[in-house]
Amino acid sequence: MNNLNFIFNRQSVRQYTGQKVEDEKMDQLLHVAMAAPSARKKDPWRFIVLQDGEKLAKLQEILPNGPFLTEAANAIVVLGDLNEAWDNSLIYMIQDCSAAVQNIMLAAAKLELGSCWLGVQPKEERIKGVSEFFNLPKNIIPIAVIALGYPACETIFKSRYNNNFVHYNRW
Amino acid sequence: MNNLNFIFNRQSVRQYTGQKVEDEKMDQLLHVAMAAPSARKKDPWRFIVLQDGEKLAKLQEILPNGPFLTEAANAIVVLGDLNEAWDNSLIYMIQDCSAAVQNIMLAAAKLELGSCWLGVQPKEERIKGVSEFFNLPKNIIPIAVIALGYPACETIFKSRYNNNFVHYNRW
Repeated sequence: MNNLNFIFNRQSVRQYTGQKVEDEKMDQLLHVAMAAPSARKKDPWRFIVLQDGEKLAKLQEILPNGPFLTEAANAIVVLGDLNEAWDNSLIYMIQDCSAAVQNIMLAAAKLELGSCWLGVQPKEERIKGVSEFFNLPKNIIPIAVIALGYPACETIFKSRYNNNFVHYNRW
Repeated sequence: MNNLNFIFNRQSVRQYTGQKVEDEKMDQLLHVAMAAPSARKKDPWRFIVLQDGEKLAKLQEILPNGPFLTEAANAIVVLGDLNEAWDNSLIYMIQDCSAAVQNIMLAAAKLELGSCWLGVQPKEERIKGVSEFFNLPKNIIPIAVIALGYPACETIFKSRYNNNFVHYNRW
């Protein structure tokens, strides 16, 4: 499966060197994000690139699942515009944004970056915290935060394939 | 961005040759699906591989967004086990399964297959239709269906990058 290593080489990284992600790489990550599919091609995703140390420290306080955000030194906050989503549906928007997040994480691995998906949805206190911190308009909904940076840990690649999870032609 | 073409080469395919996806490739797709991140590594995803023509025809009746399912000749039904999801949360499960779907679609493109993400969530009639068709246990929730097959159309690759969707350090 060598030709699919671009997928297996991604893992959740929680230790970082603190090095800034170069502008060119960040730009590439934003381009792949917007190459994801979205329901009816509504592209409701929005992104805040965060490389300001003080703001990362504040975001780290809001997100108990991201105690390494300042160490990572880079993040992308993934938001959705509920006014633009298909059917104005949070559920569609979460699927669209999740596909964009996964594209970013796979591309990050290919660019020798580490990443970690920090869930914001569906935790009310995180949604509220991120919304207030960025002073978001009501229609802009925080979905997730991606910690990004250069990994300071060894990468251990393993599949979590489970044959029990697969059915053929029937449940 | 040549090294990221594995992402840009994916597009939604709605015309297919009808050729069966080889077992080896299908197996690869299932492996990459389960290499996606999931909240607290709960891996709540479940998969039904569908290559039975009659069943594809029936599924096509249930899903108005998949009128090409029989032509595609292959599908993966992506389900989630709500009992196994983190916090027993549908929202977490949808994010986990969406990442798995995106992995499958990117790998499919790499394997010269076409794919199309057919939304099931959040449409009640589709969720009910798929659940009844497969006689799913109550905790097994349909999330999406991926049409899969060999494309019978030219592939047009374009980014949908929109600079207006990107913000730096603030909204």
